[in-house]
Amino acid sequence: MKVSVLGYGTVGVGVCSMLEAAEGMELRKVLVRPGKADKPFKVCSIEEICADEETEAVVEVMGGVEPAFSFLSAALRAGKHAVTSNKALVAAKGPELAKLAKENGVGFLFSAACGGAVPFLHNLALAVESDRILSVGGILNGTTNFMLDSMQRRGMDYGEALKEAQALGYAEADPTADVSGLDALRKIMLACAVAYNKLPCEGFSLEGIESVTAADVRHFQSKGLVLRLLVSGGMSEDGRICAYVQPCLLDSSSPEASVLKNFNMAKYRGENSGDIILIGQGAGRYPTASAVLRDLSDLTHGRREMMKDSCERVAADNSFCTCRYYVRLGAGSADALPFAEKERDGELVRGVTERVPVSEMHARVKALRESGEEVFFAAMEG
Amino acid sequence: MKVSVLGYGTVGVGVCSMLEAAEGMELRKVLVRPGKADKPFKVCSIEEICADEETEAVVEVMGGVEPAFSFLSAALRAGKHAVTSNKALVAAKGPELAKLAKENGVGFLFSAACGGAVPFLHNLALAVESDRILSVGGILNGTTNFMLDSMQRRGMDYGEALKEAQALGYAEADPTADVSGLDALRKIMLACAVAYNKLPCEGFSLEGIESVTAADVRHFQSKGLVLRLLVSGGMSEDGRICAYVQPCLLDSSSPEASVLKNFNMAKYRGENSGDIILIGQGAGRYPTASAVLRDLSDLTHGRREMMKDSCERVAADNSFCTCRYYVRLGAGSADALPFAEKERDGELVRGVTERVPVSEMHARVKALRESGEEVFFAAMEG
Repeated sequence: MKVSVLGYGTVGVGVCSMLEAAEGMELRKVLVRPGKADKPFKVCSIEEICADEETEAVVEVMGGVEPAFSFLSAALRAGKHAVTSNKALVAAKGPELAKLAKENGVGFLFSAACGGAVPFLHNLALAVESDRILSVGGILNGTTNFMLDSMQRRGMDYGEALKEAQALGYAEADPTADVSGLDALRKIMLACAVAYNKLPCEGFSLEGIESVTAADVRHFQSKGLVLRLLVSGGMSEDGRICAYVQPCLLDSSSPEASVLKNFNMAKYRGENSGDIILIGQGAGRYPTASAVLRDLSDLTHGRREMMKDSCERVAADNSFCTCRYYVRLGAGSADALPFAEKERDGELVRGVTERVPVSEMHARVKALRESGEEVFFAAMEG
Repeated sequence: MKVSVLGYGTVGVGVCSMLEAAEGMELRKVLVRPGKADKPFKVCSIEEICADEETEAVVEVMGGVEPAFSFLSAALRAGKHAVTSNKALVAAKGPELAKLAKENGVGFLFSAACGGAVPFLHNLALAVESDRILSVGGILNGTTNFMLDSMQRRGMDYGEALKEAQALGYAEADPTADVSGLDALRKIMLACAVAYNKLPCEGFSLEGIESVTAADVRHFQSKGLVLRLLVSGGMSEDGRICAYVQPCLLDSSSPEASVLKNFNMAKYRGENSGDIILIGQGAGRYPTASAVLRDLSDLTHGRREMMKDSCERVAADNSFCTCRYYVRLGAGSADALPFAEKERDGELVRGVTERVPVSEMHARVKALRESGEEVFFAAMEG
């Protein structure tokens, strides 16, 4: 397969190098920013790539919604298959790209957009054809997993863990998208679209790791529990989609607890297959490029879609999922939550709630925070 | 896709029920033993299935090499795709079936033969097209994992653990193929064939779990270690294939240690992707059937092979892989092994060896056992 690439950053360089090494693959042209086109295969306009009759597939690894969307749309209209690692793009424009691909008789795959090297969406797209997917989820942000693991196994506080994640290149200078859970949320949006043919776009419950303190970590470690930031998605019997991100406390023998450093873990539960758990590098030049190359191989075998052209946008509804929650907050606010058990810890209260709908718990904590209360909460299961 | 099925046992019933439920799939005919053909879709001869022009793919879930091989060969010659869950068949006759499939322009896939629901061979076959596979392996026998987990987390002795595995239907009345490691070995043979296009057929190093005692378990648990039966495969720089099965002691935070009960864990290391770990149910009616159905879906997308028709049989060479080994044996034989550290435990010695080639260690223990010594040994890493 002859492939052109949009973008020559971290992942782009990896894709180009893998294309040159892989049997049956050929690198055609690479789109770089004007002024950066210093090698024969580099070009500065999408028009050159669309006009290249040899190019059969276009890989987009630029990031961001625009101009990635315009460029990939042009490539699809020109009859090129499209492969992308860009989760923001697929979360925002996936259904439009799926339609364009279908109309033009070409493929549109985006495994690398969710879980890096972890072959999550690929396997989910295959499983959904013969099995009913009961739930999707896992650990889909390596930066926060690295930070939580550093706080727990190495006794760092939040600031130290973030600083090291930044020094190692895992976290951006502005780490908001990671630590707030937004990055993980985009990935669960894609997983829901693949599993349920519905792309949730609003109504999410989103809690990152910004509220966890070293004292919290010491407390739940003393109970033998491990903290992970988990994403969850599912569909109710009547077709409503749940999609949420929240910290979770897990038994130390759980598979989630064995996901160390910046690794990712994706999980789906099939009615027939049972739980399928996939672990690997969620980011990085070659891991992400390897997922792009697998999608390209998959195109050569004839696979054309991961998201159907009929995929519709829906609002998430997190009222039908319930969890028990571990909570730490000021003692004066303890009555605001339905604790099943609690204990005083100086000026604080720590405890575990009754089972509460996910959306309700997130809303209650939001209200408490708006009134000035500092709250940490985490679901008591995966 | 219109599918006929050979065999109507545990997995066969699951495949038929999933075929009836899956969109785009249709159950045609099912081969059962003479006298058992009590429903219209059941037939008693492979000829009827080969003669059925509507049948596009044949699923073999009978087990055993014959008559499965003759039947599947006939189906391939009749121009039907072949999918099987039969590891003994693929280990014995995979290259012949791959050649027949290629000659007849049809597909031959066998994901379900290795890891049950775990999509190992499927992902390996895809990865190998664009990445170099540095190693393959994992926990590929659920029965022995259930037994080891029961001995470790529930304090059972070997006999109790085996009895419970048999009561739950995980172990056969004759459990030899599981506890000796032979079942796991067949699976690593298939993984090597997919990863390296070489099917190792002899020269294996094979150690099961038959020598582990409750006292051994207590001893290594006191050191914070967890025992698993691991299979390993790889290729040296000069093209030699290693393939072995042996108990391994792992840190309790390793992914292997989180594989509980009768679950399987498959793993490959890609030069670009890094470690990819896949966990799920390794056996059972619907988990195994789900892998068969995914292969059938994969055929509809155009994938045709998992093992190439050029796959050649080779002898394994386990002399280029080395491990440090934990060993327990009679104190009188302690000098027969290159211990780096050891301690006396009554009449026994327990210790850890220097790094030793895998084939050499297995041969030394075999010689000790032939001289009447009782030995337990396990590699000190995965």
